[in-house]
Amino acid sequence: MRSMNFNITQPNQTLSGALLHKINHKTKPLGALGMLEAVALQIGLIQQTLSPQLNQPTMLVFAGDHGIVEAGVSPYPQAVTAQMVLNFLQGGAAINVFTAQNNMRLRVIDSGVNHQFSASDDLIDAKIAAGTRNFLVEPAMTNAQCEQALARGADIVNAQIAKGCNVFGFGEMGIGNTSSASCLMSVLCGLPIEKCVGRGTGLDDAGLAQKGQVLTQAIEHHHLDGSDATQVLATFGGFEIAMMVGAMLQVAQKQCTLLIDGFITTAALLVAAKMQPEILHYCVFTHCSDESGHKVMLDFLGVKPLLNMNLRLGEGSGAALAYPMVLAAVNFLNNMASFESASVSQQKDLV
Amino acid sequence: MRSMNFNITQPNQTLSGALLHKINHKTKPLGALGMLEAVALQIGLIQQTLSPQLNQPTMLVFAGDHGIVEAGVSPYPQAVTAQMVLNFLQGGAAINVFTAQNNMRLRVIDSGVNHQFSASDDLIDAKIAAGTRNFLVEPAMTNAQCEQALARGADIVNAQIAKGCNVFGFGEMGIGNTSSASCLMSVLCGLPIEKCVGRGTGLDDAGLAQKGQVLTQAIEHHHLDGSDATQVLATFGGFEIAMMVGAMLQVAQKQCTLLIDGFITTAALLVAAKMQPEILHYCVFTHCSDESGHKVMLDFLGVKPLLNMNLRLGEGSGAALAYPMVLAAVNFLNNMASFESASVSQQKDLV
Repeated sequence: MRSMNFNITQPNQTLSGALLHKINHKTKPLGALGMLEAVALQIGLIQQTLSPQLNQPTMLVFAGDHGIVEAGVSPYPQAVTAQMVLNFLQGGAAINVFTAQNNMRLRVIDSGVNHQFSASDDLIDAKIAAGTRNFLVEPAMTNAQCEQALARGADIVNAQIAKGCNVFGFGEMGIGNTSSASCLMSVLCGLPIEKCVGRGTGLDDAGLAQKGQVLTQAIEHHHLDGSDATQVLATFGGFEIAMMVGAMLQVAQKQCTLLIDGFITTAALLVAAKMQPEILHYCVFTHCSDESGHKVMLDFLGVKPLLNMNLRLGEGSGAALAYPMVLAAVNFLNNMASFESASVSQQKDLV
Repeated sequence: MRSMNFNITQPNQTLSGALLHKINHKTKPLGALGMLEAVALQIGLIQQTLSPQLNQPTMLVFAGDHGIVEAGVSPYPQAVTAQMVLNFLQGGAAINVFTAQNNMRLRVIDSGVNHQFSASDDLIDAKIAAGTRNFLVEPAMTNAQCEQALARGADIVNAQIAKGCNVFGFGEMGIGNTSSASCLMSVLCGLPIEKCVGRGTGLDDAGLAQKGQVLTQAIEHHHLDGSDATQVLATFGGFEIAMMVGAMLQVAQKQCTLLIDGFITTAALLVAAKMQPEILHYCVFTHCSDESGHKVMLDFLGVKPLLNMNLRLGEGSGAALAYPMVLAAVNFLNNMASFESASVSQQKDLV
């Protein structure tokens, strides 16, 4: 499998002492910038410099359709995936507003939407097929399709890196994809499906019960032990999720920074981290979604996200909203004065 | 007292139905933007429009010195207040970096620093005196000084409103001012001082014990029941806190939006809200500080802040960092497409 070509290693930690010294000598009480200090250290290590830069921040939004929607797991019709892609291209979605506000470039990728779009400069056509198959019946995709999606994800990242990007947000659109994400999570984390299923875009109690039943049946049907991440991905994944996995692996491989969004994006990362655990060193977890399983995922990974604002929109919206925090981490590291340079006295007991 | 001149009323709520309709018809699942939706509604009501605008966002940072530092309540020497004001004027502090990043204007106010600054376009000279008196011994300021500080705060806001500003961040600098804030909180909230005292800029255990002892003694000495907010303010306040109270009241009076920062800023708001409870309708609570009493204050007010990032720097830094979230709330309300305008299907059961 293509995933075998990735070889992600932890950033060299030699610089951490010098980075901490720089952070601790800024004109502020020790530790007073909280989570921003951890992000500054992390990105300094990723980029192996005391003066990291975020260049051409780019949000990649992968879209795909899901055969599982036949089983009645979403309150929205499948057509909404294509409609929302058109909304992205016309600039009317939340992700357009937030990326525009925060000076991020937005690239929308058709990974496998059940609609033929007209050619557009703003849409990357990487379609594997017009939606996955229904994983209640059969694997969502073939192994070949899965490999193809991983490879195309990596290629898309390479093209953006060639344009100068070194920080990537990840988002998605796909009616039904919380179902995919819940199954990936359940199998990869070894958690019962009840802990992994939520209301998605807004299921009521009856809909939630129906979704839980469908996904339980699907997981029992395929009976995977979770040791082969690629097999799990091919079985339950969407094309947008598989392509995101390939993209994530390539971003880390190239020692760039990943901004992880909500439930579906984190499910993709679970797959990527099962393949290449060191990828986690390159990830900034931008927010905790209101989709109930997301907090469980973040706890499973042992990470604390930047924002907790009850978001549950997807599209990469949480990552786009959190981008100014990541930028603030880099900016304070580069632009704040030190006690010495500003002639400010330090704590009495440290002088 | 000047505070008697303020008359703050709740924004007219008539528009809330139309605002909620607009929010709920954006191309996103119902409620999916979480806290941003509440902020959009709030600012729409403050401005009495379906299309609110944030104009000339301005961060006011009030600085003052505190007689109580004689009692050994801070690990930093008093001179740091003036040194940090100079750092603000030279652009080297965290608040400079974050306001510059987020396109906010920064105005620094000398409310009562124990230093004579050279005249500078960037510093508003509103000095009441060269620091307060030691409230362990006597009230921090006279009633006349307190009135003067409230009035100057209101005047500073009027000048910014005249320049077109309709959204104000509040920040402060003053070695020793967590001690002021803790006493204000204890007396105004009726809470024992232990729940109100924290490590400030970084006291160790011995320092924290010393600070608790000093503040307990001060509170016993003055023996106030908290019913007269102005008296409490004059007794324990700093000049920067009193001036901030006047500024806050004027911002709400003029139906503009307040961005509330951390522990000291929220203590000022406690005073303002004791005088004019309806001020709370105009406040966006930007973050929960790591200073231990801040969460208690926010719970006392019954509010949930936007960010929880373990910040404890002051200067208005949390408010400046959260500003992009507030802007995002207004931007999604103004710029996102509706289901109708983008031809996106709604939830099946809502169609």
